Amino acid sequence: MHAITISEPGGPEVLRWTEVPDAVAGPGEVLIDVAASAVNRADLLQRQGLYPPPPGASEYPGLECSGTIIEVGDDVEGWQEGDEVCALLAGGGYAEKVAVPAGQLLPVPGEVELIAAAGLPEVACTVWSNVVIAADLAEDELLLVHGGAGGVGTHAIQVAKALGARVAVTAGDDDRLERCRQLGADVTINYRTEDFVERVKEHGGADVILDVMGAKYLEPNVNALATGGRLVVIGMQGGRKAELDIAKLLVKRASVTATSLRARPVEEKAAIVADVRARLWPLVEQGSVAPVIDQVLPMSNAAEAHRTLDAGGIFGKILLASHS
Amino acid sequence: MHAITISEPGGPEVLRWTEVPDAVAGPGEVLIDVAASAVNRADLLQRQGLYPPPPGASEYPGLECSGTIIEVGDDVEGWQEGDEVCALLAGGGYAEKVAVPAGQLLPVPGEVELIAAAGLPEVACTVWSNVVIAADLAEDELLLVHGGAGGVGTHAIQVAKALGARVAVTAGDDDRLERCRQLGADVTINYRTEDFVERVKEHGGADVILDVMGAKYLEPNVNALATGGRLVVIGMQGGRKAELDIAKLLVKRASVTATSLRARPVEEKAAIVADVRARLWPLVEQGSVAPVIDQVLPMSNAAEAHRTLDAGGIFGKILLASHS
Repeated sequence: MHAITISEPGGPEVLRWTEVPDAVAGPGEVLIDVAASAVNRADLLQRQGLYPPPPGASEYPGLECSGTIIEVGDDVEGWQEGDEVCALLAGGGYAEKVAVPAGQLLPVPGEVELIAAAGLPEVACTVWSNVVIAADLAEDELLLVHGGAGGVGTHAIQVAKALGARVAVTAGDDDRLERCRQLGADVTINYRTEDFVERVKEHGGADVILDVMGAKYLEPNVNALATGGRLVVIGMQGGRKAELDIAKLLVKRASVTATSLRARPVEEKAAIVADVRARLWPLVEQGSVAPVIDQVLPMSNAAEAHRTLDAGGIFGKILLASHS
Repeated sequence: MHAITISEPGGPEVLRWTEVPDAVAGPGEVLIDVAASAVNRADLLQRQGLYPPPPGASEYPGLECSGTIIEVGDDVEGWQEGDEVCALLAGGGYAEKVAVPAGQLLPVPGEVELIAAAGLPEVACTVWSNVVIAADLAEDELLLVHGGAGGVGTHAIQVAKALGARVAVTAGDDDRLERCRQLGADVTINYRTEDFVERVKEHGGADVILDVMGAKYLEPNVNALATGGRLVVIGMQGGRKAELDIAKLLVKRASVTATSLRARPVEEKAAIVADVRARLWPLVEQGSVAPVIDQVLPMSNAAEAHRTLDAGGIFGKILLASHS
């Protein structure tokens, strides 16, 4: 099979479409003929040598994929050869084949094309595990999503609206903010020209914040929280260390949580995937939540996809089609 | 009636046992003939002018009491004159009478003396709302309690053990650590001579930490957390601002929450009290959880009680008896 290998840590040019040994399904796993994978910001870090795969994971990048099951390993129930699926991966999605624990599989929802389904597992599991399971976003509460135009952001808007919550988003240009509004965002904030704390406070403060900036936004995020608010940090694009004013948190009875998906044990991922399937997938089947795809590139040109994500300005996900 | 008034912000000497107008029960409230109140660290801050009563609360100190209902206001159901009760207060416990919303009343448990019951409401609601409701301490998990010999600490040890969890405590001398062990603590740590992070890590890290130090302990507390750990800060004896390493939190998928009880709306307090009554009170009735009383002083000598708490070295609660 072919896979994207990282010849050495570096820029997009180190990504090479290379002939490699076939992936093999172990016990409890299935082998997928990959239709598409999707680009996540973590892939860019992995390419630079800053985010090594967890122990036991594939060395190739790619945290999600869609495709068709071509082999079912021992001790797997409920899945058969020929099933069209998408999957949350610990790595290895940038390849023609990938092996994945059966607990990380999801059926391709009826409303969704096979290739487009590659853009769902990461955002679905990220948003669901953080906004719904961890932060327990309730009806009528206000969710603030930083990076509202990104893959996670565009998904979070739809999920929160489907659950009856209100959504505020930040982004860097008015064009993409308008597209966020079309997806359902109630409050759109241009972080280049507006103070998001003031804007969110006009709406009573954020009950939940989904943040990818980390240190840079820690103080304003705490300031933007409502009483009982929950800040969930899933990225550190703005650094890792910042001063926390515990008194502000205490007065608001608020919390700061930071999480990641990739390093979780297989059982925890399976529990998240099962909850996504049980509670989010029906919303996707109904069409209330849909993948948002910026563009589809040939997987062999992963380098171009990385340059595009890094340049910013995209809306939703960039997919990599394996057989194009 | 008499109450302890604060003549001006200052040392214990500003606390005066003074003739004041009688407290009056409004709609939804009962009037209690106070048997005893208890001293909380927040009272020391209030005396110094650093922790003003929330709007609408009594100006006298005292966040909890026990006593007998002598008047039932309009719209109160389930309580009668003559009932022996203890209560969570927003203030006013250092007095011969106090009015309190009916939702903040608890019956005096069968195993507990009327005066001793004054030491239960604050620690019960604090530990239950933070360790059980917010942090969701599970069976076999490890709870780390800083200040294990204090009122909150001695209560937290008993509650956690009754729920089947393991408990580590810190305190400043071996004598009180031994008494914590007798209450059920599994791991006792002298913070003057031992590194609590190392000690807790030997036991797999803390799943939940109940902290009163705030800024000073933020970094070591994060270091001491296990994967999925929850740090709950309920005091800031070590300051309010400290650097938070979000990356450490993210790798552990951990959270930092800070809360207080006093400023919560009446409905939230009532919800906590109701859950304490439903789930914790049976453990008190069984004797698995009991008030831990260091000493009982006459309420008129509240100044001496404040000096004693400030000096440190107590084990459990200091009570103030109203009629002695």
